[in-house]
Amino acid sequence: MLRFTLLGPMQVIADGTPLTGIAPRHRAVLGYLLLNAGRVISLERLIDAMWGHDRPDTARSQIHASITAIRRVLRGVDAADRTLSSLCTADLSAGHPARPGASLELGGSLVQGPSRSRLRDGTGRQHRRGKVMSIDLTENSITEEVQSTFDGCRDARTRELFVALVRHLHDYTREVRLTGEEWFTAMDFLERVGKITTATRQEYVLLSDILGVSVLVDLINDHSGPCTTDSTLLGPFYVEGRPAVPNGADISAGRVPGMPLFFTGRVATRSGDPVAGARVDTWHSDGEGHYDVQQAERLHGHLAMRALLTTDEEGRFWYRSIAPRYYPVPTDGPGGEIIRAAGRSPMRPEHIHFWLHAEGYEPLITMLVRSDDPYLNHDAVFAVKRSLVVDFVQREPGTAPDGTVVKEPFQTVDWTFTLSPNAG
Amino acid sequence: MLRFTLLGPMQVIADGTPLTGIAPRHRAVLGYLLLNAGRVISLERLIDAMWGHDRPDTARSQIHASITAIRRVLRGVDAADRTLSSLCTADLSAGHPARPGASLELGGSLVQGPSRSRLRDGTGRQHRRGKVMSIDLTENSITEEVQSTFDGCRDARTRELFVALVRHLHDYTREVRLTGEEWFTAMDFLERVGKITTATRQEYVLLSDILGVSVLVDLINDHSGPCTTDSTLLGPFYVEGRPAVPNGADISAGRVPGMPLFFTGRVATRSGDPVAGARVDTWHSDGEGHYDVQQAERLHGHLAMRALLTTDEEGRFWYRSIAPRYYPVPTDGPGGEIIRAAGRSPMRPEHIHFWLHAEGYEPLITMLVRSDDPYLNHDAVFAVKRSLVVDFVQREPGTAPDGTVVKEPFQTVDWTFTLSPNAG
Repeated sequence: MLRFTLLGPMQVIADGTPLTGIAPRHRAVLGYLLLNAGRVISLERLIDAMWGHDRPDTARSQIHASITAIRRVLRGVDAADRTLSSLCTADLSAGHPARPGASLELGGSLVQGPSRSRLRDGTGRQHRRGKVMSIDLTENSITEEVQSTFDGCRDARTRELFVALVRHLHDYTREVRLTGEEWFTAMDFLERVGKITTATRQEYVLLSDILGVSVLVDLINDHSGPCTTDSTLLGPFYVEGRPAVPNGADISAGRVPGMPLFFTGRVATRSGDPVAGARVDTWHSDGEGHYDVQQAERLHGHLAMRALLTTDEEGRFWYRSIAPRYYPVPTDGPGGEIIRAAGRSPMRPEHIHFWLHAEGYEPLITMLVRSDDPYLNHDAVFAVKRSLVVDFVQREPGTAPDGTVVKEPFQTVDWTFTLSPNAG
Repeated sequence: MLRFTLLGPMQVIADGTPLTGIAPRHRAVLGYLLLNAGRVISLERLIDAMWGHDRPDTARSQIHASITAIRRVLRGVDAADRTLSSLCTADLSAGHPARPGASLELGGSLVQGPSRSRLRDGTGRQHRRGKVMSIDLTENSITEEVQSTFDGCRDARTRELFVALVRHLHDYTREVRLTGEEWFTAMDFLERVGKITTATRQEYVLLSDILGVSVLVDLINDHSGPCTTDSTLLGPFYVEGRPAVPNGADISAGRVPGMPLFFTGRVATRSGDPVAGARVDTWHSDGEGHYDVQQAERLHGHLAMRALLTTDEEGRFWYRSIAPRYYPVPTDGPGGEIIRAAGRSPMRPEHIHFWLHAEGYEPLITMLVRSDDPYLNHDAVFAVKRSLVVDFVQREPGTAPDGTVVKEPFQTVDWTFTLSPNAG
């Protein structure tokens, strides 16, 4: 009788006597074969099991050496082949001549299943994309195989983006040992993200925002150079058809209640000269944290708290509105599920958005954030930069910066935006 | 006059005379400050610029030492402060008392903008989540900040999944230096994936498939153990309401043209004993590579080439159908854009799907693939395993395995499926 012990020191015991001669370096191979006795084990799978990603150049010859050594020790033992194959007592191919041999036999060929010659097409070309045959993929070798399918990309950048994407997707899946159930949950989650997304409800953008990807892209691409205003996220509430208004207009249009806010701004070059004729888009929430597009019914579809202004000869622009308020990102969709699961705050601190365009200068998307906001350092989308933190100054009733006499308390904000010259 | 030379050896030149005393280890700090003169540079941003992820424990004290050294050298030079701030000739805060100081001044505090005391709320708690204040995030420190927002997860696995997801998303974005335009393209792509997805068109699953993630999840979760049939992907064409039929039925139902196929199967335990009463779902394409659900009009909504069978006392099941054909994954949606951009083959080799359920055994989702298929090693979704490659045997007109006399050429496939006992 031939016995193999795997727990404790690995031994091959023939009729009660341990066999010697299988060096430690070969025992791992024998152990793997025993654990998988009766299964088809390809050379590639064996190499993968032994070394994973760190396979030495000599991997194949080392495996062959181990197989030779194992065979040599077992050769004299009559029971060896029978014992090895009876570790899996069902001989699956019995009576099924159509099926390629599927049992591992140490005495036979290591690689079984369809023969390699069958895996060539009429041109004699071997059917393989990566280093490993596609039908022998393991959880490690599959990554290189999938990456190799992007070798034919006509665009080098596309290839770079997908090869890196595959690596990170696969590394993630392996690292967390993603279960099938979790994969189904992810597929269902993404499907629901797709279903809730509309032109005015960008749930993918929200996911990118709350996972910090949007701000990271902004940080990576911030080439604004010294002395210019930092950029930050556009956010989901910019609307194309906003009204153009003259300086001094009340852009809350009297439709929305709240404390009056007087904004005075200036657009300048890096040397401090005024930029006249700059187009300044601005938009912000109302005093309860809602944008106009979130209350279309109440506003009868009118836009409010958003406008397009133009700077005067001194680079100045100014308008009246109402003070905005901190508000939560939308939490009634899949993005909200993540926020609740994490016990995170969905809040964004009080802020005013700006998008500046001027002939000869880089466009600037930015946002000013209230300095004493309780969520200043807890923005749900990580978009506040220290350089964009500004005081919203509380004023007693009196004369506003534009000369208006205001009979109630009001706020003022003043800021100079500095643009970069066009890169071109 | 004070001049700084950055190209060639970095030097500080006062009235034509180079100043000495700024050691090489401090010059990088001075260089970074000069390149960013006029901007608010936080201590964290400076540390990040010097060391990135590999910051030593002494990073803060090293920066402070450099600042002290730089100040010491410049102290005697009257023009120093003026020169440094005039590198950015616009003094942005002039005339804007509401704005926090925003110019870098080596003679003043390194960290400017709103003072730290202002960044506390009423409780005196500092507004910070990670190690870095949220408003001082850099492209490297943002990752830890976003990860820290998952500290409050009630479920440890959820936290693990998101912390790793954020790391890989951010690493990917940084590595490829994703541009804003590419980010917009990705958002638009995902939105279109969402729009095309329906109950019978799972485009997210297709993306997961063609990027190899689905098979990787299958490989990771393959705990079938020795001597059992390997699992593989379910694929998108399984349908719940398939008809239950007796053994021997023609499941192509005469509705679909093609070469007759006779399938004989057996379900067995690992020791080779039959599994009686096992429920066997099977489904496959027609002779042109189309599933029934892809030709609902032609089939008047009838299902075909799919059925639920039950094994007899000997664990056997058998049916007649038509031979399937290799076919492309759907390429008319966003998934197809990837396939075309990569110049990849969209083809899947000829195969038959199976889903087995039996009391006391683990369910098995698997697929048998034709051994001489030209796409055997080029499956668009990487789902072929060597152990699942099988001969589709071509037969001359004559008697089929079930005794039917067939007057045209036909094919036979025979296979034994081996199940794992229930883990529970």
